[in-house]
Amino acid sequence: MKKLPFALEEYEQRLQRVQVNMRARELDAIVITTPANFRYFTGLDSQFWESPTRPWFLVLPAEGESIAVVPGIAEVPVSRSAAGSMKTWPSPRPEDEGVSLMASVLKDLPRRFGRIGFELGRECTLRMPILDFQKLLPMISPIEVVDGGPCLWQVRNIKSAAEVAKVRQACEIVGHSLAAVPSFASKGSVESDVCRDLSIEILKRGAHTIPYIACASGQGGYDQIITRGSDRELRDGDILIFDVGATVDGYFCDFDRNYAIGKISDAALRAHDAVWRATEAGLQTARSGARVSDLWAAMTEVLMAAGMKGNNVGRCGHGLGLQLTEPPSNCQDDNAVLMPGMIMTLEPGMEYEDGKLIVHEENILITEEGLPELLTIRAPREMWRID
Amino acid sequence: MKKLPFALEEYEQRLQRVQVNMRARELDAIVITTPANFRYFTGLDSQFWESPTRPWFLVLPAEGESIAVVPGIAEVPVSRSAAGSMKTWPSPRPEDEGVSLMASVLKDLPRRFGRIGFELGRECTLRMPILDFQKLLPMISPIEVVDGGPCLWQVRNIKSAAEVAKVRQACEIVGHSLAAVPSFASKGSVESDVCRDLSIEILKRGAHTIPYIACASGQGGYDQIITRGSDRELRDGDILIFDVGATVDGYFCDFDRNYAIGKISDAALRAHDAVWRATEAGLQTARSGARVSDLWAAMTEVLMAAGMKGNNVGRCGHGLGLQLTEPPSNCQDDNAVLMPGMIMTLEPGMEYEDGKLIVHEENILITEEGLPELLTIRAPREMWRID
Repeated sequence: MKKLPFALEEYEQRLQRVQVNMRARELDAIVITTPANFRYFTGLDSQFWESPTRPWFLVLPAEGESIAVVPGIAEVPVSRSAAGSMKTWPSPRPEDEGVSLMASVLKDLPRRFGRIGFELGRECTLRMPILDFQKLLPMISPIEVVDGGPCLWQVRNIKSAAEVAKVRQACEIVGHSLAAVPSFASKGSVESDVCRDLSIEILKRGAHTIPYIACASGQGGYDQIITRGSDRELRDGDILIFDVGATVDGYFCDFDRNYAIGKISDAALRAHDAVWRATEAGLQTARSGARVSDLWAAMTEVLMAAGMKGNNVGRCGHGLGLQLTEPPSNCQDDNAVLMPGMIMTLEPGMEYEDGKLIVHEENILITEEGLPELLTIRAPREMWRID
Repeated sequence: MKKLPFALEEYEQRLQRVQVNMRARELDAIVITTPANFRYFTGLDSQFWESPTRPWFLVLPAEGESIAVVPGIAEVPVSRSAAGSMKTWPSPRPEDEGVSLMASVLKDLPRRFGRIGFELGRECTLRMPILDFQKLLPMISPIEVVDGGPCLWQVRNIKSAAEVAKVRQACEIVGHSLAAVPSFASKGSVESDVCRDLSIEILKRGAHTIPYIACASGQGGYDQIITRGSDRELRDGDILIFDVGATVDGYFCDFDRNYAIGKISDAALRAHDAVWRATEAGLQTARSGARVSDLWAAMTEVLMAAGMKGNNVGRCGHGLGLQLTEPPSNCQDDNAVLMPGMIMTLEPGMEYEDGKLIVHEENILITEEGLPELLTIRAPREMWRID
C-alpha cells in the first residue's frame, strides 16, 4: 500500500482552508478535474493523467468531506487516498463519461448560495471535454457555475512547513546534480547526452520524476530557454544552460545553472554577473509585505544598468509548488503581495546582444520576518566551467 | 539548433490530410491548444507545457500553411519548427492572454463555411482558461465554434512509417529494459527503488522521457495498476508488474511485464497464462477490417473461460502514438474499424480472485494484409522470475 506523503491532518487543513474561502466567496462547492489540484487534496501519486480517455473529479463541498467521482480503474488507489467518500462509473463510456453521475452528485449537495466553482480562470484548465461540460451545465440548473480558481490558488499559494520540506529536498537533489555536470560533460559533448546523464544523476539522488528539463547552448549565450537538449556539440566559448523541474512527492524545484565552456567572452561574463547580481537584488527585496512587482523592479533595475536589450520570458520569476510554475508572476503589473509561506522563483534574464540571452534562477521561501530563505544552494557568482 | 524528428514533407502531409477532413466536415480552420496536437503539426520538442501560465495556439486553416499564435517566450523555438507563419504576444498578460490576438487571426481567415473547430469533444481538452474561451467566442461572432476533435483523431490514428519507427524504437528500448529487471531486483527489494533503477535503465538505453511508469505488487497479483511504486518490499509469492510509457521523439510505447517473485501459486500462474493466451487471441484477430469490439470479444472469451471475476480497467487496450492512450478503446461497444497504420495496445486483464488482478499488454501495428506486426518483443509465456 502506498503511504500518503503527508499526515491526514495536513489534507484536512487544506480542505478546511479552501472551505473558508468558499464560504467567503459564496460557493457551495468546488469541482476539481486537474492533476495538481487532485493531488493537493488527496495525496494520490499516479501518472495516469497521461491518458486523456477518462476525466477524474473531486468535489469539495463548502462543509464536510470531499467526494471523489472517478472512473472504475481509479477505485482502489483513490480508496487509499485522503479523499472522503467516492463514487465510480464504468469507464470508458464516451456517451456518458461521468457526466450524469457528476450531475447527480452536484444536485445532491446542500445548497446555500446556488453557485459552484470549477477550474475556469487564470492559470486553470478544465480536464474534461468541453462538450461534456456544456452538457453538464443544464443538468444541474439552476446551479450557477463560476470560477473556483482564485479560491484554490489562494490556499495553494501558502505552503505548509511539510510542503516546503518537499520543495527544499527537490532543490537539494537537483542542486547537487547540477554541480556534478562538469564531471560528466566536456568540450565536444552533445547537449542531449549531457541532458540524459543529468537526468540519471537526478534520479539516482532521489527525485521521483523530472517533468521539465530544458537545455540550450550557444556562443556567449543561448537564444531561447524552453526546448529539450539537441544534437548540438559544446564548443569553446559556449554558455550552456540547464533549467530543471524535478519533483519529490509531486513538489517541484525550478531553477537553472549556467556553465562556461572553456574560455568565454568578457561581455558574456559581465552579462552572467548581471543576472547573478539581479538575483541578489531580488533576494534583498523578497520580504513579506512587498509586492511581486517590487521583485520585478529590483531585478530589472540591475539588468537595465547592465545593458539589457530585451527578455521575451516576460517575467522575473513566479510561484512554485505542485506545478512547475504557479501564480503570481514577477511582472511590472502584478500587484500580488508576498506572504510568509509563499515559494517563489527569482528568474532574471537578459538579452545582452542580439540572440545572446543569459538567464539565472533561484528558489526562495518568503518568511515571517526579514530576508527569504534560499531553498536552492546559491549558484556561485562565477559560472561553473566545463573544459 | 534542434533538428525536427521528421522531414518537412511529413508535416506537410499531416496538414494536407487534416485539411481534406476539414473541407469534408465544413470547417474553415481548426485551432489547437494541447501539447500532442501542437507537436504533431510542428515537431516542437519542449516540456514547457508544464507551466500553466501561457496558452499556445496553432491555427490550421482549411487551405495554406499553419499559423502559430504563441507567447513571446516561444518565438525562437517555434520559428525553427514546422509551423508556417507566427504571431506572438508579450506574456504573461492575464488580462488578455492571447485572446484578442487569436480573435484577429481567426477573423482574418478566409471564410467559406463560417465554422471553426476547437478541441472540444471525446478525448480532447482545451488548454486555455475556459473564461478566456468564453471571451473569445463573441469576439469572432458570427463564426461558429464546433468540435474539431474527430478531424484530428482521424488523421493522427493512421501512423506513417516514420511514426511507426519511433514507437517501435520506444518499444525496443523499454522491452530490453524490462527484461533486465531481474538483474537489479530481488526478494526484499522495494518497489520504488526498482522503479528508479528501471527508469535509469530506460534512459541509458535511449528513451527521451518516461512520462508514465506504474508499479504494483502483491501476493499472487495486485489490486490496481495505475499508481507509482510504493515502499512495499517484494516477497516470496508476489507478482510484480511494471507498466511503462516511455517516449522517443514524443512517441510512446505502452506495455507491461509481470514478474514472479520466488514461488507463486498455481492459480496465479494459470491467471497469467490466461492473459498471455488472451493476448494471442487478440493478435490473431487484429486484422485490417476487424472492429475493436472484435478484439475485445476475442480476448474476453479467453478470460471468461479462465474464470475472470472482473476487470475495472474497462477495456482490453487502446490506440497509441503521441499520447500514452489514444482512441479507440477495445470495448464491447466501440465499433471503430481497424485500418492499416493504426497502432494499438492489446491489454487483457482479469481479477481471478478478490483483489488479485493480472494484466498483460503488447503493442501492435495493423498491417495491410494478414496478422499485425508486433512492435514489442513478445513477453515470454512464463513470467520472468525474480529470486
